[in-house]
Order: sequence, then C-alpha cells, then structure tokens
Amino acid sequence: MIDRVYNFSAGPSMLPLPVLEKAAAELVNYGESGMSVMEMSHRSADYEPIIAEAEALLRKLMNIPDNYKVLFLQGGASTQFAAVPMNLIRRTGKADYVVSGQFSGKAFKEAQKLGYDVVCSATTKDDNFDHVPALTKDCFRPDAAYVHICYNNTIYGTKYPEIPDTGDIPLVADMSSCIISEPVDVSRFGVIYAGAQKNMAPAGVTLVIVREDLLDYAEPNMPTMLEWKTMAENGSMYNTPPCYTIYMAKLVYEWILGLGGLDVMKQMNEKKANLLYGYLDSQDYYIAPVKKNSRSMMNVTFVTGNPDLDKKFASDAAKAGLKNLKGHRSVGGMRASIYNAMPYEGVEKLVAFMKQFAAENPKA
Amino acid sequence: MIDRVYNFSAGPSMLPLPVLEKAAAELVNYGESGMSVMEMSHRSADYEPIIAEAEALLRKLMNIPDNYKVLFLQGGASTQFAAVPMNLIRRTGKADYVVSGQFSGKAFKEAQKLGYDVVCSATTKDDNFDHVPALTKDCFRPDAAYVHICYNNTIYGTKYPEIPDTGDIPLVADMSSCIISEPVDVSRFGVIYAGAQKNMAPAGVTLVIVREDLLDYAEPNMPTMLEWKTMAENGSMYNTPPCYTIYMAKLVYEWILGLGGLDVMKQMNEKKANLLYGYLDSQDYYIAPVKKNSRSMMNVTFVTGNPDLDKKFASDAAKAGLKNLKGHRSVGGMRASIYNAMPYEGVEKLVAFMKQFAAENPKA
Repeated sequence: MIDRVYNFSAGPSMLPLPVLEKAAAELVNYGESGMSVMEMSHRSADYEPIIAEAEALLRKLMNIPDNYKVLFLQGGASTQFAAVPMNLIRRTGKADYVVSGQFSGKAFKEAQKLGYDVVCSATTKDDNFDHVPALTKDCFRPDAAYVHICYNNTIYGTKYPEIPDTGDIPLVADMSSCIISEPVDVSRFGVIYAGAQKNMAPAGVTLVIVREDLLDYAEPNMPTMLEWKTMAENGSMYNTPPCYTIYMAKLVYEWILGLGGLDVMKQMNEKKANLLYGYLDSQDYYIAPVKKNSRSMMNVTFVTGNPDLDKKFASDAAKAGLKNLKGHRSVGGMRASIYNAMPYEGVEKLVAFMKQFAAENPKA
Repeated sequence: MIDRVYNFSAGPSMLPLPVLEKAAAELVNYGESGMSVMEMSHRSADYEPIIAEAEALLRKLMNIPDNYKVLFLQGGASTQFAAVPMNLIRRTGKADYVVSGQFSGKAFKEAQKLGYDVVCSATTKDDNFDHVPALTKDCFRPDAAYVHICYNNTIYGTKYPEIPDTGDIPLVADMSSCIISEPVDVSRFGVIYAGAQKNMAPAGVTLVIVREDLLDYAEPNMPTMLEWKTMAENGSMYNTPPCYTIYMAKLVYEWILGLGGLDVMKQMNEKKANLLYGYLDSQDYYIAPVKKNSRSMMNVTFVTGNPDLDKKFASDAAKAGLKNLKGHRSVGGMRASIYNAMPYEGVEKLVAFMKQFAAENPKA
C-alpha cells in the first residue's frame, strides 16, 4: 500500500486519519451490536443513540441555541437552493440574494426558476468575484422574507470577513465550505445549511440548522421531503436518513471536540492559512487574486499567470503527493483547499513545493 | 467483539460479510490512490472509474437496455414520490396509482398533495393489504401518463406475482425492497426506482432507471435536483453524489455477479423463502396473513394471534441473535426480512427458534 497523500480537493476532501481508522476498525461489527452501522435499522436501539449523539455533539461544538432545530438531510446544498425559498418565502412573498460566486448564483437562479419574487441585491460579478460585496441593511428590501448568502465561496476562495448585518431580516447562509472551521454566532442566522463533504463527513448528508419560528412558512404543495418542518418533527427520520454518513459526521465532531473544539480548530486553520498566504504575499511568482479582506481560510486560490505553467504545477504537485490542486474548471489556476482535516505538514509541504517549482520553472 | 448477528431488519438491513470486510480493508487507503474513497473528489481520476463501474455492473446484472438511463441519486424513494409526477405527469396531465400498502399509499398522497390529477385505480386496503390487486389494462385511464405501483410491499410482505400489464401506459415501479433479488425484464417498465438500503447498499443512495423517451416531461419550475433529465445529462453528478455509498453499491453488485448473477440470487432467495413459508404452512401456531399468490420473497410476515406473545417472540429472538423481527409499528406481529445478504443459515436458525418458541410458549 502506498502512503496517504495530501489531498487539497475542494470537496469531497480529506477526513481526519484517526476518524478513518476508527471507522475502518468498527465497520464490520460496531460495539456490542453484532452488525455494521451500515446495516442498522434507523429506528433501532442500536442506531438511535448514534444520530442523537451526532446532534448533541454538533450542538455542543457550535453552541447552537435551543430554539434552533438541527436536521440531517440528503441532496446536498443544491437541494437546499430549492428548499430555502419553498420553506421561507411565504413569510413575506419575496427574498433577496447576494451573488458572490458560483454557488450563490446557482441558489439565486434556482429561486428564480421556481417562479419566486427574488432579486440580486449585491454582486461582485464584474470584479470576477475577487472579493465579497460590502453589505449593509440598506442593500435589502425591508420586507424581504430572508437574505441569502454563501458565507465562503469555495471556487473563488473568498469569505465574508464578518457576518453581514441584515437587521430584522433572517439571514440564510450556505456554509458548505466553512462549517465547523471556526466558532460562529448561530443566533445571528435564521438558517445555516451545509453539504457535509468538505469539513464534516463524506458526501451524502446535508446539515440544516433552522430557527424554530421559521418552520411555519412551507409551501402547501411542495415536495414533503424538502419540508424542514416535517423533518424537524420526525427527528430527521421522516424516511430513512443516510445513517452511515451521519455516523461519520459524529466521529468528526468527536475528533474536533477532542482537540478542544472550534476555538482550537480556528487556531489550527489560521496557522495553515497564514503560512500559505504569508508565502504568497512574500513573492511575485504566484499571484493570489482575492482581495485581502475577503480571503477564505479554507480555499486558497493562486495562479502563475501562465495557464501552461498552472497545468504543469498541478501535475507535478500530484506526482509529489500533493493532489487535487487544480483550480475549479470554471476559473482555472490553482486552489488549495485546506479544511480542518488537512494537517499543517501538508501546507508546509505545499509551500516547499511551490518554492521549488518557482525556482525550477522560471517564467519566460 | 461479539459475533455478528442475523439481522432481519426491513431496511437498512444486512450487507454481505465479504463486502463489509473488503470495505473495511480499503477504507483508509483505496488502491493506489493514497486516500479513502470517502475523501475522493467526485470529479477526479480516482473516483470516476468507481461510479462508472457501479453503473456498468448494474447494467450487466439487471440486463438494462441501452435506451434506459441509470441514475444514482439522493433522498430515498420518498423523494421519488414527488419526483415521479414532477418528471412525468406532463406527458398527458394525469396519472393512475395502485395502492397496495403503506408506501404506494404515500406515493399516491404525495402526488395529490402536489396538486396533480391522480386517481387510485385499485387498492386492497379493505383486505388490510393481505394481497396485491389483480390488475388488467382496463383498470387504468387510457390517457394516464403513467401507472405507479410498489412492486414489493415491505410492511405487509406482499409482491406482484408477475409484472402488471398496463398496455401502452408506462409502468413506474418502486422496487426498493426487491431490487436485484431476482431477474426482472426492465423493458416492461418506464421507470424503476429503489432506495438502496434493503438489497443494494447502506442508506443514502437512490437508484432510478428511466427510459430515455420519458425524460422530456419535467415541469419547468420544479426543483432542479429532482429532474431526472438534468441528472442523466450530468451522469448523476449535477452536484456531488453520495460517492461512498455508490462505492458500497458497486461492491454489492460485484458480490452478486461473483455468485453467478440474478438467476443464482433468485435461487438462493427462493430457497430461503421456501424454507420459511414451508414451515409456516406446516403448522398452526403461527399465522401467515398474506394470500399465497401475493407472498413476498423478501419480507415474510407472521403473527401468533396474541400481541403479548408476538412481543415476547421478538424479544426472545433478539436474545438468541436473531434481531429486528418485530413487525412494522403500523401493523404489529413479526416480519422476517430475508434480503440477498441474509444467509440460508440465518433462516434455518429462525425456523429452529420458531419451533422452540412454539413448544415453550403454548397458547392459553
């Protein structure tokens, strides 16, 4: 067997090695159950403590207030692009979107496709999304049912430097690529949702954290499986949940709590990001296109300015055990996704490789 | 570690031991990839062969004609209850449902909730679903866009003895609890769908097999993630698929092909079902409520006639390593789900336990 690589994929992405090892050790036979977690009835005394513990650990980790429901769903953030307006827009009949990258654009387009009264209140499209929009309460229609943002833009490598102030309008945030990477004040949000496959678990479970008073606006004729209230009333078990993926999320939550929680996780993530951004700022071979106050701590984008060199970089890096550094197909260049599970040593090796590559591949 | 038990759960349910052992062995580091399958980008050279192979193996296993698309989705069969009418009903504007148990009833109610012109063409509700309706072409509106059935009723333990003849009307079948348990002529169906967690994989992936000419009727303003055509055009990767669960399905397909395919699987399943039904028919302590020509090969229901004895049965059986024999909470009694992965020995042990229980617990 070859060594494990450093995997800079934007998602699905690295999982903590101790989590994988624990999962492997108990895959065939979990505890005293006599079966795999994969085989457990979701309504059994074997499984129910697992999903209950997953929720309890996440509540502890994120300090989720009691008036928020925690849902473990399927379908990815892309399904929530439809579920958000279907569950919320009836509050006032209209909603406002901020388009700061590809996924927030997709969320906006989905709400439009469903026929709703939605507007794009702010965008940085004309700047190729190299920063997030500066937002104030005045950006939004005062009677909007909600304001939708993508908190961290995986593809462009940007993030809001602070939680936007939307006044009394509930803020809905796609946090797929920054969830549980640092502490966040959940009470500032109406809804937080996130696909799991970046910072939380393998692909296949979608987290929705929703304030209870926002559960009462679901469209009467929407697909039942997309109704947050139905899922909340059934403890995420209206139908069979993705049991094993939820179990994996539980192991990840345990791992972070074992390290000391989200304050420690943030320190570790800052240290990695500072190393990489610090190097980028110290030289002029690579260009980091994102404006400094919008930099993502999770996804670091850079280019050489020469697409052929960019291609060679990703290819040579993969040979050196640094995989999936190619930027998203829609933007090119390079992207290093350095989520919770990426060790500091992985970023050290990346910076060392970047230096070596720059020395060995002078620009014409 | 205690021994593995015989798990008669209706789903999630047993997986083949060799599949679990293989998954455990390669969980941390898959092949030459240097990473877990759980960590692989779905658009990587590491992962793409896995999903491609899963589809190829399933096509081989089920002998799926070329004019059918195979989709690996999320959300379970319950999400397809909404997706089916949203994708198909525009063909003619109305659809017919057969209600032969709880899940087919839910599918019908979901289509009604969405506001569509649907009728229940046949039901066995008045007989407490102890058999499936006898269906002929005349049961249905000739201009129905489709006829929906649930091919095997998990809760009641019934199954259609043959594929119903719906003439030119596309037949849509929920096969969640009998998929890949025996050969089936896919060309007789317009759409087959199935949650994976009974015969195919852990919970978290939903199979949809759809005839290509039925992809053109999606509602213009439906959730994109529920559109079969969008998923077909993107090879099930419009967004991140449940990668690891698809990998598990691939291992299960390999296991069945290694045994000899669905003809052999059917023989093995018949042998198990014959043993259990043969015993039930040979005695009068237990009652098997399902009419003989509607008996399911996958889910075998029986009662003692005394709810207290039923409860004791499930409890004593669990202590003997025969778990999850309690009937569905909506019907009571006992249910032995004997899917592909249940060994013959498990059914032998169950029958031996049933004999012992009957001897030791005489009815008053």
